[in-house]
Amino acid sequence: MEIPSSLVDRLLDTWPVARLATSGTRGYPGALPIVFALVRGYLWTPVDGKPKRAGELARVRRVSENPHVELLLDEYHDDWSDLWWLRIEGEARVVEPPQPERDPDVAPVLAALRKKYPQYATVPVLRDPPTLLAIRPTRIRSWAASETALAALESRSR
Amino acid sequence: MEIPSSLVDRLLDTWPVARLATSGTRGYPGALPIVFALVRGYLWTPVDGKPKRAGELARVRRVSENPHVELLLDEYHDDWSDLWWLRIEGEARVVEPPQPERDPDVAPVLAALRKKYPQYATVPVLRDPPTLLAIRPTRIRSWAASETALAALESRSR
Repeated sequence: MEIPSSLVDRLLDTWPVARLATSGTRGYPGALPIVFALVRGYLWTPVDGKPKRAGELARVRRVSENPHVELLLDEYHDDWSDLWWLRIEGEARVVEPPQPERDPDVAPVLAALRKKYPQYATVPVLRDPPTLLAIRPTRIRSWAASETALAALESRSR
Repeated sequence: MEIPSSLVDRLLDTWPVARLATSGTRGYPGALPIVFALVRGYLWTPVDGKPKRAGELARVRRVSENPHVELLLDEYHDDWSDLWWLRIEGEARVVEPPQPERDPDVAPVLAALRKKYPQYATVPVLRDPPTLLAIRPTRIRSWAASETALAALESRSR
């Protein structure tokens, strides 16, 4: 069954992690866990100050080469009747604001990220050079294994 | 830092879920949670009897069109010093055994899946027509945010 759209909206606002699938020009897909915030209809993910493996910024290169992405929100449960997922196809764009805190598009994004993730009190929300991906959703699909899965998700995302 | 190879091996044996990134011919990536078992160097994932959204078998079509995939194993934590991931690039192949329980390659895979997932006592491990993906790993990359992350993972995957 599908996830009701009110719950989809709440998940997009509150769910802490997504897996971002990208595909470069050569057709080699990549997947990476990301944090994100929904601001004015776009899903934004920053290149933040969390520790990172060198070279992980391949995601920026990949998106420059091919803007098509898919975001996956889901959660594994040993009880398979509790499974669900939300998949967002979108077009990603690399945003490199020279003055992010003064940028009228980016400043509200930084505020939303800091509100959603208290971790940004100590971790820089952007690194140098400031870089974010802005993803415009083009198609949303959802699935839940059962009514129980929906009820559990509903009560947790309040 | 990287995850030590002994722990990588243990994660591939025991971690219950991966996110599979695929890319069709048109360069639109897709991501999906999957269960899997490592058998004789291949990562196998069945099209099983878990409830599914109609059309979810796009993964089979995508892999037929483009065998390059990436598997992501990771876990989100609010404490970002506990984050880690394991990414396996590979080549996937669609396997459609007419008699899976008698197939010398597939029968051990079904046994491994049933051992890893007790859920298969009640959920069919294959649907009709029997279909699995066999993924040959070509590159493994790993990352952990801290020694604490590694120690926690180490103690949980025993």
